Amino acid sequence: MNSAIQYAKENQEKYVNELIEYLRIPSISTLESHKNDMLTCANFVADKLKTAGMTKVKLYKTKGNPLVYGEWMKAKGKPTILIYGHYDVQPVDPIELWDNNPFEPVIKDGKIFARGANDNKGQNFAHIKSVEAFFNTERELPVNVKFIIEGEEEVGSENLSTFLAKNHDLLACDAILISDTSLYAPNIPTLNYGLRGLTYMEVTLTGPNRDLHSGSFGGSVANPINELAKIIAQLQDKNGKVTIPNFYKNVKPITKKEKENFESLKFSDKKYAKELDVKELQGEKGYSTLERLWTRPTLDCNGIFGGFTEKGAKTVLPSKATAKISMRLVPGQDPKEIAKEFTKFVKSITPKSCKVEITELHGGKPVLIDLNNKYLEAASKATSKAFGKKTVYTREGGSIPIVLEFMENLQAPAILMGLGLDSDNIHSPNEHFHLNNFERGIYSSIYFLDLVKDLK
Amino acid sequence: MNSAIQYAKENQEKYVNELIEYLRIPSISTLESHKNDMLTCANFVADKLKTAGMTKVKLYKTKGNPLVYGEWMKAKGKPTILIYGHYDVQPVDPIELWDNNPFEPVIKDGKIFARGANDNKGQNFAHIKSVEAFFNTERELPVNVKFIIEGEEEVGSENLSTFLAKNHDLLACDAILISDTSLYAPNIPTLNYGLRGLTYMEVTLTGPNRDLHSGSFGGSVANPINELAKIIAQLQDKNGKVTIPNFYKNVKPITKKEKENFESLKFSDKKYAKELDVKELQGEKGYSTLERLWTRPTLDCNGIFGGFTEKGAKTVLPSKATAKISMRLVPGQDPKEIAKEFTKFVKSITPKSCKVEITELHGGKPVLIDLNNKYLEAASKATSKAFGKKTVYTREGGSIPIVLEFMENLQAPAILMGLGLDSDNIHSPNEHFHLNNFERGIYSSIYFLDLVKDLK
Repeated sequence: MNSAIQYAKENQEKYVNELIEYLRIPSISTLESHKNDMLTCANFVADKLKTAGMTKVKLYKTKGNPLVYGEWMKAKGKPTILIYGHYDVQPVDPIELWDNNPFEPVIKDGKIFARGANDNKGQNFAHIKSVEAFFNTERELPVNVKFIIEGEEEVGSENLSTFLAKNHDLLACDAILISDTSLYAPNIPTLNYGLRGLTYMEVTLTGPNRDLHSGSFGGSVANPINELAKIIAQLQDKNGKVTIPNFYKNVKPITKKEKENFESLKFSDKKYAKELDVKELQGEKGYSTLERLWTRPTLDCNGIFGGFTEKGAKTVLPSKATAKISMRLVPGQDPKEIAKEFTKFVKSITPKSCKVEITELHGGKPVLIDLNNKYLEAASKATSKAFGKKTVYTREGGSIPIVLEFMENLQAPAILMGLGLDSDNIHSPNEHFHLNNFERGIYSSIYFLDLVKDLK
Repeated sequence: MNSAIQYAKENQEKYVNELIEYLRIPSISTLESHKNDMLTCANFVADKLKTAGMTKVKLYKTKGNPLVYGEWMKAKGKPTILIYGHYDVQPVDPIELWDNNPFEPVIKDGKIFARGANDNKGQNFAHIKSVEAFFNTERELPVNVKFIIEGEEEVGSENLSTFLAKNHDLLACDAILISDTSLYAPNIPTLNYGLRGLTYMEVTLTGPNRDLHSGSFGGSVANPINELAKIIAQLQDKNGKVTIPNFYKNVKPITKKEKENFESLKFSDKKYAKELDVKELQGEKGYSTLERLWTRPTLDCNGIFGGFTEKGAKTVLPSKATAKISMRLVPGQDPKEIAKEFTKFVKSITPKSCKVEITELHGGKPVLIDLNNKYLEAASKATSKAFGKKTVYTREGGSIPIVLEFMENLQAPAILMGLGLDSDNIHSPNEHFHLNNFERGIYSSIYFLDLVKDLK
């Protein structure tokens, strides 16, 4: 194991050069025009898995982009670790805000700037290089390893979900290792054990059957924008609590231990508010910011539109207004149930003077990983060793829908070993990845594979 | 006079063809991109005034779009009638709801469909053609006539207002004739004696300094869409009353006589609701629909936007949200005062977690015309003759801000001789104008100019 670490250290420059090649492929899954790039990228990953020493490397066709699979199963009696990642990336717009071509990686101040540098190429590549370091020094891995790298995470992982349901045996494992989250802070090794779920709705109110002159008609009929605003206002009370009946029914309070853990992270509201340039933070009363972000459900409008939205004034009383409203969910809440309750409640508070149309756009279940599991313990030791600091446990506000499906289908814990930083601009212009996190990610992976070898 | 009527009748087809040309010019005053079309349209109107027989036809430059002026002042000792109209039109969006290109007029079932057909090109063109009919038959007008046709009515008439303040002599008159309102019902000649005023505001809330991922940040900071919705919801109470302090302070109740007049008009809520396809009407409690429309102030959102407004789902917690909010005002309310009260109140209910920016986009004073004036009497006779029915007196919900300024500056009564119908879709897709109203408008104008000749 030490020789693998040594090897990884000596080959860091070569690894970074290969990462640059990986980042040059514009594998934007949401744009049809990049269809060929997706295949190029899948083949690139497959080649790298082969070079690293994996066997049975194969592209599995799906209705969309191929899944890249590879395994090494010769560690008899040892645990099997499934490593997941994705080779697809987000679109690059607004392109004018990038300082470099997003697919011509640039290294500056120890960071590599490119679309996908953090999310997720840099993070999954660390694990491929960890395996390579083992094979190039010890000719074998301490445990069995399977890789599944998909090309559709940024568009909902639907085809992986279908594949997963049909290929339990192929993907069977003792733990799922995923690096697609963030460090709590620079240089702080971090394991994430909770992700919020999501219910995403769209509400359209229709008042009169056509846009009207607000002078000639104002005061006689309901205005769908005003009425939609009243509906939105009624979805939360003065204390920031969601008012939808049964919304909190199955939400359990966090344990004293978790509360203490959060407090130990010494989150600074002041710094956070300053960074976002707001005078004060806001959210559900009675909870700290970290509690609100990681353990409490929310309701946010993600978009709203209706009437005249150009510059200037138009005196229209519009026919329609639409809001996109999503709720982040926590363990105990079911996305489908919440969608139903939302629909029922919104219908009940819509005035008779308007028609309402409510659509569920998408959803995902929340995830909570049992803190008492030995793979997580090993991950804690591994990352602590790699970073030279005590590993912290965090939860996160966002969702990675496939994580829960892995856990439920494969009956194995997920280890969310994030290597990015929240300030790395993922999904935004100038996405980057700190090369020291790439390096420490490789070490974390090597230590982890070694530490879990006797857990079975 | 009879020969002028005869001439107008015979030339109806030619007049409609000229109106089509007028309607082809996309003179949208609120869009910078149509700047050249405004000038083209002003020149078109000037040409038509010259052809009609007017003298001293001239474009008066303003800071915005030019004013078109023309006069004929050879009826010594006779009254002077100032005819006002506007050549600018509203934007056309949502364009997809139009059955034809809004600037390629189509005639169907006796109606002409185009942006501006009713508001206001069709209506002001009727007066130009009335004058033309006189000159082409009697070589003179029975009274002195001045035309002032502006290009900024839809954006607040600010430059006409400035011009008016400086050009009392040029515009001096005994009565101001305006066709920019509606018939009470098809075939019912109508004179309007009251217009609501307007205060039009734009409110932009800013939460965090950039768009955030709603998963990673949701629950920690104020969402400007949710907060804007709460602000809008607080602007009206459960009874539909506006909650802004001092909003109703100077509003006087209507007289018993007016109330009786309204009741005599036998307005049908049921028919109105059916025509707009709403299950029930809605507005300030305690007032009939006509009272709400004509004599009570309102508050309507004319537009709202923020966050993700495309198809599908994007989990964004936006930085900004904007609403366009206008209030219709009635006699006693001052637009500037109301703008101040609105601003103060919205600021007072904006949470500390957001920044708010409030802009007054435009405003106009309400108008009430004294029913006891001889020009109005003459207009009643003229329209009654043209339509072959008894003329009714109404008020109206919309504003024509310049009307009051004309009255105050020129010390003359305004005659609001509406030719449109409320069902003509002004400011909406498929705006149209009934050609028989265009025709009867020309006759009304001819009769009126003749009937007022001895009023001085």
